[in-house]
Amino acid sequence: RELRDALEPSRVKLLRQFTSLSDGVKFLVDLRADLHDLANGDPILRDLEGDLRELLSSWFDVGFLELRRITWDAPAALLEKLAGYEAVHEMRGWQDLKARLGGFGPGNRRCFAFLHPLMPGEPLIFVEVALVREMAAAIGPLLDRATPAVKPEDAEAAIFYSISNCQRGLAGISFGNALIKRVVAELNAELPNLRIFATLSPIPGFMRWLDGHTAEGEAPLRAMLSRRGWNRDPAVVEALREPLMRLCAHYLLEERRNGDRVLDPVAHFHLSNGARVERLNWLGDISAKGLRESAGLMVNYLYKLDQIDANHEAYAAEGRVIASSSIRGLLR
Amino acid sequence: RELRDALEPSRVKLLRQFTSLSDGVKFLVDLRADLHDLANGDPILRDLEGDLRELLSSWFDVGFLELRRITWDAPAALLEKLAGYEAVHEMRGWQDLKARLGGFGPGNRRCFAFLHPLMPGEPLIFVEVALVREMAAAIGPLLDRATPAVKPEDAEAAIFYSISNCQRGLAGISFGNALIKRVVAELNAELPNLRIFATLSPIPGFMRWLDGHTAEGEAPLRAMLSRRGWNRDPAVVEALREPLMRLCAHYLLEERRNGDRVLDPVAHFHLSNGARVERLNWLGDISAKGLRESAGLMVNYLYKLDQIDANHEAYAAEGRVIASSSIRGLLR
Amino acid sequence: RELRDALEPSRVKLLRQFTSLSDGVKFLVDLRADLHDLANGDPILRDLEGDLRELLSSWFDVGFLELRRITWDAPAALLEKLAGYEAVHEMRGWQDLKARLGGFGPGNRRCFAFLHPLMPGEPLIFVEVALVREMAAAIGPLLDRATPAVKPEDAEAAIFYSISNCQRGLAGISFGNALIKRVVAELNAELPNLRIFATLSPIPGFMRWLDGHTAEGEAPLRAMLSRRGWNRDPAVVEALREPLMRLCAHYLLEERRNGDRVLDPVAHFHLSNGARVERLNWLGDISAKGLRESAGLMVNYLYKLDQIDANHEAYAAEGRVIASSSIRGLLR
Amino acid sequence: RELRDALEPSRVKLLRQFTSLSDGVKFLVDLRADLHDLANGDPILRDLEGDLRELLSSWFDVGFLELRRITWDAPAALLEKLAGYEAVHEMRGWQDLKARLGGFGPGNRRCFAFLHPLMPGEPLIFVEVALVREMAAAIGPLLDRATPAVKPEDAEAAIFYSISNCQRGLAGISFGNALIKRVVAELNAELPNLRIFATLSPIPGFMRWLDGHTAEGEAPLRAMLSRRGWNRDPAVVEALREPLMRLCAHYLLEERRNGDRVLDPVAHFHLSNGARVERLNWLGDISAKGLRESAGLMVNYLYKLDQIDANHEAYAAEGRVIASSSIRGLLR
Repeated sequence: RELRDALEPSRVKLLRQFTSLSDGVKFLVDLRADLHDLANGDPILRDLEGDLRELLSSWFDVGFLELRRITWDAPAALLEKLAGYEAVHEMRGWQDLKARLGGFGPGNRRCFAFLHPLMPGEPLIFVEVALVREMAAAIGPLLDRATPAVKPEDAEAAIFYSISNCQRGLAGISFGNALIKRVVAELNAELPNLRIFATLSPIPGFMRWLDGHTAEGEAPLRAMLSRRGWNRDPAVVEALREPLMRLCAHYLLEERRNGDRVLDPVAHFHLSNGARVERLNWLGDISAKGLRESAGLMVNYLYKLDQIDANHEAYAAEGRVIASSSIRGLLR
Repeated sequence: RELRDALEPSRVKLLRQFTSLSDGVKFLVDLRADLHDLANGDPILRDLEGDLRELLSSWFDVGFLELRRITWDAPAALLEKLAGYEAVHEMRGWQDLKARLGGFGPGNRRCFAFLHPLMPGEPLIFVEVALVREMAAAIGPLLDRATPAVKPEDAEAAIFYSISNCQRGLAGISFGNALIKRVVAELNAELPNLRIFATLSPIPGFMRWLDGHTAEGEAPLRAMLSRRGWNRDPAVVEALREPLMRLCAHYLLEERRNGDRVLDPVAHFHLSNGARVERLNWLGDISAKGLRESAGLMVNYLYKLDQIDANHEAYAAEGRVIASSSIRGLLR
Repeated sequence: RELRDALEPSRVKLLRQFTSLSDGVKFLVDLRADLHDLANGDPILRDLEGDLRELLSSWFDVGFLELRRITWDAPAALLEKLAGYEAVHEMRGWQDLKARLGGFGPGNRRCFAFLHPLMPGEPLIFVEVALVREMAAAIGPLLDRATPAVKPEDAEAAIFYSISNCQRGLAGISFGNALIKRVVAELNAELPNLRIFATLSPIPGFMRWLDGHTAEGEAPLRAMLSRRGWNRDPAVVEALREPLMRLCAHYLLEERRNGDRVLDPVAHFHLSNGARVERLNWLGDISAKGLRESAGLMVNYLYKLDQIDANHEAYAAEGRVIASSSIRGLLR
Repeated sequence: RELRDALEPSRVKLLRQFTSLSDGVKFLVDLRADLHDLANGDPILRDLEGDLRELLSSWFDVGFLELRRITWDAPAALLEKLAGYEAVHEMRGWQDLKARLGGFGPGNRRCFAFLHPLMPGEPLIFVEVALVREMAAAIGPLLDRATPAVKPEDAEAAIFYSISNCQRGLAGISFGNALIKRVVAELNAELPNLRIFATLSPIPGFMRWLDGHTAEGEAPLRAMLSRRGWNRDPAVVEALREPLMRLCAHYLLEERRNGDRVLDPVAHFHLSNGARVERLNWLGDISAKGLRESAGLMVNYLYKLDQIDANHEAYAAEGRVIASSSIRGLLR
């Protein structure tokens, strides 16, 4: 211990001074984000970044986080930040934001965020949830305010369709796991009618991987994919469907980096949290971004309350990916 | 008293039932607004409206109102309502709203509203204030976010440039008076550097009055006013300036209805509150609406703390309008 | 209506002025209490009291009341008032208060109060509840902190053992009815294990009535009752038991004033609220006050959710008192 | 850094688990207090205590503390804790507590506490302040509710007469310094009429020191002090006055331990905070405890806003004690 004490660098003492400023903690969080960008080889900056990381990870202990349901009654300043942080499916103005918080129709949307008492008014991470009849297969209808809505008490599935980290300066200090568990618990208590808790997630690295992946006989497939508007040509859509689904299943379940960890970052996040890979959805996201990044494919990760811990254990300890039999079937 | 008791109509008993519903008071306020539109001669509806008025005026006693400063940290639901109720200078989206609440530059805007504990989340009336160097002469620069801003502690004048009643169903139950007095007191305490408390107000009835007013020799004036874009022709502007200022001073100070009350509703409001007519501003509002309703003229009503009571008394008791010598000079 | 308007006395206008003072509403409530004591024949004061009553009854509409659970986390200033207003079973210091709010052992006490947004920090009426295994028969063990406590989730009965009106100035403006209904609903939602909702109530007028009531053959009974400590003499207790129970049942159910209304004020309150007279408890309250006022007897009024409306109707419309067969049996 | 990381003991990881329990942080704070008592030579427990200290000192950074004025409107649960933690002048029941919070007469008492967002409802340290006409010389009148009170706006002196640390488990993680500075600033802003900010403090170690201190010719003095009720014998009081004042001045200013640090712990606290030793008060505390610990003497430490930093520097860097000339005069 005395060794540790002696090693407490005076940098840390300096950094602590900022806590007494208003917004001092936010300042330090943003400072770490900047240092991360700048450090790049400079050992002094890298060390400073490391000290900050240690300090922040002591303050931002997951036990201190407050789960808050975000509604249209939240402060406009907080909602403005939320809209700015949305990383998955961009918000189109305040009416879109209002709808995503549950403000339209029978109130079948939910938004939950983690906040921290030392950085009030700043969301750390938030998730948007749609309450629907069954596991959602496409993002378009979920984001379209014109889609007929079910009443919350008639919904059977809670779809987590967007999860956004807000503070780059807290990278590596994880709370995503805790967020999903607590939101599932909260929804379960409010709406006992819900049977399915699942995401509708992008597969952000699929096309990048496919580009770098060369396999015999895939040239025609690539040629078709490179045509603009291929998704509106029924013949092409039909020809691409099976091979792409197979390749994608392979990408999600088999491709690894650093040994056991799956290559796709979103898959890694949900597998670490104890989800299983449940279903691939062909033409699930036909936005420009969806086509470009994942050939329009989306995936459901399923959270079954009684299997979360076992799934997490299998993946964390042995790198074993739990997947539904339909997904497994695509691998053969 | 027993007579009064016997007269308590069973309608009132019915109306009271609504209080236990959530939003019941808001329902009754809106009901009165609807009745006012519909009644039109029907004695039963008119009586119901009267009963409602009595009930509401008992509940909405000015002593119960809470003055709240509205900032960008207010609930989005409240701000959305506020933007919808703005009656004087329309808001253009959320960024405009944010600016009007004080959110840009050095924070030299303020917004205050009255709320009532029985109708939470619903503004009753609100006022928008700009902190500037001197009594403002034109609305354009006040609404333009590009105008260079002074720091609040350097401002000398607080300009009330928009006052909006939010609840048609509370018509005739007045709190505007109390609002301005309390906002002046609040600003005075926060910023002792403020010397001038004045409005920059529209003159909504001027052109309508002018149209009905026929006087010898005014035909050329009318002709000039009817040309589109007259305000961009320097010669016309010069020719119109003096006669219109004279006519407007006459309209504001001399034209009455029901005996003592001045004809212009905004003038009546501020004179009743104890303000004095301070200055006419030529080309103060060159928006389409400003030109159409008041030939581009605006007026400052000045609130001098030590004269408010005397001014109010003079107007309320004798119909005497207090005005600056420059305005009086226009009458000769 | 115009007649009514003309009759609005200038006194009322005067009274309304008080609303803008801090604590102005509390001042008016207390003023009415004072007027009630002083008026006594003076027609002017009586009229003023009447005006106040009308004004207060408009403001204190039951729809505006907020039901609040009062715990040890409530402001000390509020709790001090509560302890002062307790009218049924006096509190002995702050530790006793803490226990009654639920602060000891497994938390099997509850306290609920009505508050009003125009008079914050002032309880209007409150009820104290004990969660126990079965319908309580004696007050002593309920007030004794040493009594072994059941866990809330094992309790089967919620006993309302003290209901206190706090504002004499709101006499005749009733909310007791609404309070009990809402507390029953609240407890029902929190603890589905509760099957019985009943009071354990004093019978404050029994002995007074008995003193004025002369019937043949009652002299020995009176003689026994007048002996100090009769309740500790088993022979006397046995001799008195049956005749007193019979007389008390008669007093509660049959003695009326103003036609239909039962004589006992607490019985009238609960019968009006839709309760039924369930059980007489011999030696239910052996405190000095209990012996003096009701010969130690207490009574349970039972609230059955599905019979409240019918019971209320029977009593309010026809003066019919609903009682259990065991009580009815005592009348023969 | 990697060295530090490798040294992060798994104990710390374990300790962090407690944060997600409700009251988890309070649990850890109390655990450290217990370890401190138990450790006593056991190296494993001592190390655990050290780890806890590090963790807690990271969480309880002074920048995170919230200064709160504690009034009679605070939760009873918080006030009960406060009364329990009062270490200097014991509270005698809730009415005494209410008086100390400012609740009687013209409101010339204040109480301020530091709270921390991770341990809500738990005061860390609090100070009680009396607003009076001049620097107080005796504690009796300050604690006596019968003493005539000045109005806050007529007071010239703010006397800090009791400062209590509440959490033994946060020993060595200091916020007393920050507390006094912030309270002085707060009072200064509220009441510009205040000219003097000073404590009225006990001298807890004086008599213990005197007992161990043997000097020629002090035997008669000791003999007088050992008589019960000496403070009520005018002759003895007169004879003791001068020698004891001299000895006490010597004790406070000259006696040191660990080199520069003064021996008296309260003196050390205020000197570290930048106060100066201003005045000794003969018979300032004639309670049994006051006579026993400090022969009835009390001392004022004076906080002069423009000298706090220099005083602090002189003491911290060189061990130089700043004192008034009257105190210095006693040393000769």
